[in-house]
Amino acid sequence: MREAAEGIRERFGFGGEVEKAVPLERVQLREPRLKRPTAFGDLFSDARYERVSHALGKAYRDVVRGFRGEFENPPDLVAFPREESEIETVLSWAEAEGAAVIPFGGGTSVVGGVEARLGERPVVTMDLRRLDRVLEVDPASLAARIQAGATGPRLEEQLREHGLTLRHFPQSFEYATLGGWIATRAGGHFATLATHIDDFVESVRAITPRGTWESRRLPGSGAGPSPDRMLIGSEGILGAISEAWVRVRPRPEFKASVGVEFDDFLAAAGAVREVAQSGLHPANCRLLDASEAELTGAGSGAANLLILGFESAGQPVDGQLDAAIEISRAHGGAAGEVRKQSPQESGAGDDAVGAWRGAFLLAPYLRDTFVACGVLSETFETAITWDRLEEFHAEVMETTRAAVAEASGVPREGPGAPRVSCRFTHVYPDGVAPYFTVLAPAVRGGEVEQWDEIKAAVSEALIGGGGTITHHHAVGRDHRPWYDRQRPAPFAAALRAAKAELDPAGMLNPGVLIDP
Amino acid sequence: MREAAEGIRERFGFGGEVEKAVPLERVQLREPRLKRPTAFGDLFSDARYERVSHALGKAYRDVVRGFRGEFENPPDLVAFPREESEIETVLSWAEAEGAAVIPFGGGTSVVGGVEARLGERPVVTMDLRRLDRVLEVDPASLAARIQAGATGPRLEEQLREHGLTLRHFPQSFEYATLGGWIATRAGGHFATLATHIDDFVESVRAITPRGTWESRRLPGSGAGPSPDRMLIGSEGILGAISEAWVRVRPRPEFKASVGVEFDDFLAAAGAVREVAQSGLHPANCRLLDASEAELTGAGSGAANLLILGFESAGQPVDGQLDAAIEISRAHGGAAGEVRKQSPQESGAGDDAVGAWRGAFLLAPYLRDTFVACGVLSETFETAITWDRLEEFHAEVMETTRAAVAEASGVPREGPGAPRVSCRFTHVYPDGVAPYFTVLAPAVRGGEVEQWDEIKAAVSEALIGGGGTITHHHAVGRDHRPWYDRQRPAPFAAALRAAKAELDPAGMLNPGVLIDP
Repeated sequence: MREAAEGIRERFGFGGEVEKAVPLERVQLREPRLKRPTAFGDLFSDARYERVSHALGKAYRDVVRGFRGEFENPPDLVAFPREESEIETVLSWAEAEGAAVIPFGGGTSVVGGVEARLGERPVVTMDLRRLDRVLEVDPASLAARIQAGATGPRLEEQLREHGLTLRHFPQSFEYATLGGWIATRAGGHFATLATHIDDFVESVRAITPRGTWESRRLPGSGAGPSPDRMLIGSEGILGAISEAWVRVRPRPEFKASVGVEFDDFLAAAGAVREVAQSGLHPANCRLLDASEAELTGAGSGAANLLILGFESAGQPVDGQLDAAIEISRAHGGAAGEVRKQSPQESGAGDDAVGAWRGAFLLAPYLRDTFVACGVLSETFETAITWDRLEEFHAEVMETTRAAVAEASGVPREGPGAPRVSCRFTHVYPDGVAPYFTVLAPAVRGGEVEQWDEIKAAVSEALIGGGGTITHHHAVGRDHRPWYDRQRPAPFAAALRAAKAELDPAGMLNPGVLIDP
Repeated sequence: MREAAEGIRERFGFGGEVEKAVPLERVQLREPRLKRPTAFGDLFSDARYERVSHALGKAYRDVVRGFRGEFENPPDLVAFPREESEIETVLSWAEAEGAAVIPFGGGTSVVGGVEARLGERPVVTMDLRRLDRVLEVDPASLAARIQAGATGPRLEEQLREHGLTLRHFPQSFEYATLGGWIATRAGGHFATLATHIDDFVESVRAITPRGTWESRRLPGSGAGPSPDRMLIGSEGILGAISEAWVRVRPRPEFKASVGVEFDDFLAAAGAVREVAQSGLHPANCRLLDASEAELTGAGSGAANLLILGFESAGQPVDGQLDAAIEISRAHGGAAGEVRKQSPQESGAGDDAVGAWRGAFLLAPYLRDTFVACGVLSETFETAITWDRLEEFHAEVMETTRAAVAEASGVPREGPGAPRVSCRFTHVYPDGVAPYFTVLAPAVRGGEVEQWDEIKAAVSEALIGGGGTITHHHAVGRDHRPWYDRQRPAPFAAALRAAKAELDPAGMLNPGVLIDP
């Protein structure tokens, strides 16, 4: 940790004094307000470790509070259902007790989605990770029925036996669950076409307080508003997702990728727009600005880096990559070496693309280290149509730099100044999803207030500029003030009415999406 | 008409005696139960022609009843708003009068979506076709803001000035409107990827009795359940769609298509499955069984015909077509001549693909002729996952043949027997949308009962076999009994609650999707 701290200070010019996390045994925890029922075996737990480890998500403000041993809203009990009947048991027991129930997957929410900020109301957090099986595979339709609590590695490991893969790789992959992804409209591996888990869902099954919600397995339908699309993104307020049929695919055999450098960020964005509108459908089309490229070790910091990748299970993809490179060149891009993989030749090489991928997957694990070393790290993500991108990007970067410097009490420029960088995570014919990363010296002891101040300023810029408050991190509790302004008022009224109908006790994840 | 009748009799062995339609002046029409308000200029009409021409959709049972002058449920008034404020006027006036309001686009519903089967309740049908302008074009994002009442030709003609196209070409193209397509989840031109209008919608604006519902223009979002997806398919029960931002595209410059013949329908289906799962994304991938191919003049009736087409604005598509042909050959297909079009060479040739396209676009116009000549013509459409296709297809074909013969009082085989054929309209990696066409001798004077009997039997087979009651024709009133069994019960409860919140008087298109 000391070495990490020195490295951080040397690299960023801030952070560096190591603090120690408060150990579990020194955490002051409110006594459970619910008595653990003994009639249901080990379904409910009141163990200290479980209550603490289910009290928070993984937002920066969560990691900081966990580090300091501040668990203001621990669940009173944690339930671990093994099957749907046990989900029903948890719901009916909690309803009788007047308790709230928070469905919990991997606990990787970065938007306050699993923290029960409910004052006096007792809370049961329902951890679904024991429901972790691939129940059925349909090789003809390339679909699989998977329980909601299966984490990325668990479901991929079971699909691998059938030569199949879901290929949904958010940064939360290792811990997050299928049900959590569906409930939060998680973004994944593919930069185009199937950008969200939404696109993989063939049908969903959920347990609501008023019965089981199960849609038919259908490749497509036009029968009324899509029932699945109402559950997808419902963040646990309508029911607990128990399983889903999802579209899977054979593992890709052909891959080709390249890094393309651009001096000018907007020129690079122009290339991305043309690629996104070309119908080439790259699997990867991620643009890192120069600062982000340097941060992830993928570039020197002198140029913006566009990572282009194509993949297919059955067809060579070289032609598509060539066409995308040609488009990039026309916008001033300088392509690096093409990295290929086919059934005949395996890919290799420690280049920019590989460096970026490594950094992407490791990033979430650095956050505890950052907190210990006094570094505030946070990300903001959104989406915007192409016509507004230039102004929007400039405005959000400017607002973020100013807000971070102000909240951190440091100058905006020069040695030790905060780092603000941008990448594009997903691209569309009509727009793009920009993703902003912030690194700044933490205000020791005041990190949460510092974070809240930055979060509010940036969120104002996102909403004021016409973007969405979230492209794939979800709404939870932290995004509520801006989400409430973004969504159509009659839709909010409709959603409230729908919830009141299915969950008249208002027990399911209260405070998320709509008021408790 | 006499010549047509002779041709029909010669070709099918049934039909042929020409009846004459009841002329407008001989139609017995209920007196309007609402007095036309005079304070709003020409906003409301009680003209006989308008009331009659807005009384029915275009289902076979509608065409028959119109032909016979049977208009049981004419609207009392027809409103023609020119702007949103007039939509609001219509809603508030109707609410005060206790009247129902039926939003009306092109009137091309084939599922009873625009017929007010409401007994004593007075009805205003609100025709939105005066709202027919393309209001704004965003060439950077390839998106356009279009009023809901614009028909296919109207919106394409305005987009053409910008070198753009929506390329949504259902059979209803000439009459149907953008708002109608969105309200009913219409299927369109593309056999893969953007199969429904759903996929083109960037944001929607609708007038509800409790305020304006407008979503943000976003290329993608993860902020709660999608508000757009709740309006898309709502069939007018939540609000009247007034305009939408939709994704458009440059006109395709490169096209390539081919007809591939297969002796065996299931072998052809295997080829379609592999193409659908290949990631090649054909624009057209329509399989016509031998009978359907013969019916449309695209084939001799000896072979099943797969029509494959690719198109792109910027890239040659020959490679993709070649790959799809290769897949087809591996499944026993014999490819015809490839038809190509590029900026350099223009396409031509009167081949199977062209014959099919011509027949597709003309088919709806034949229906009045069929009715006059005593031919029952109807289509049924659904979607099913690949694993169930073989059994499902056999069962639905068998049930349909039996039901049609029984209801028509003719033998199932031999000269003069009914025609039942199948095509695939849209394909997915996990399944397909089969579309069934029925031609049979009409029971003169008893066509509606004959139709109802067939409809019920086929719908039972679709729902019993695990399909959807509609892939893109919508639910309306005719599909209700089967839709009610298909959708998840808690979703139905949520939808009812949402409607009650936004439309407490239950005035908007009562009886569609949920009970009045």
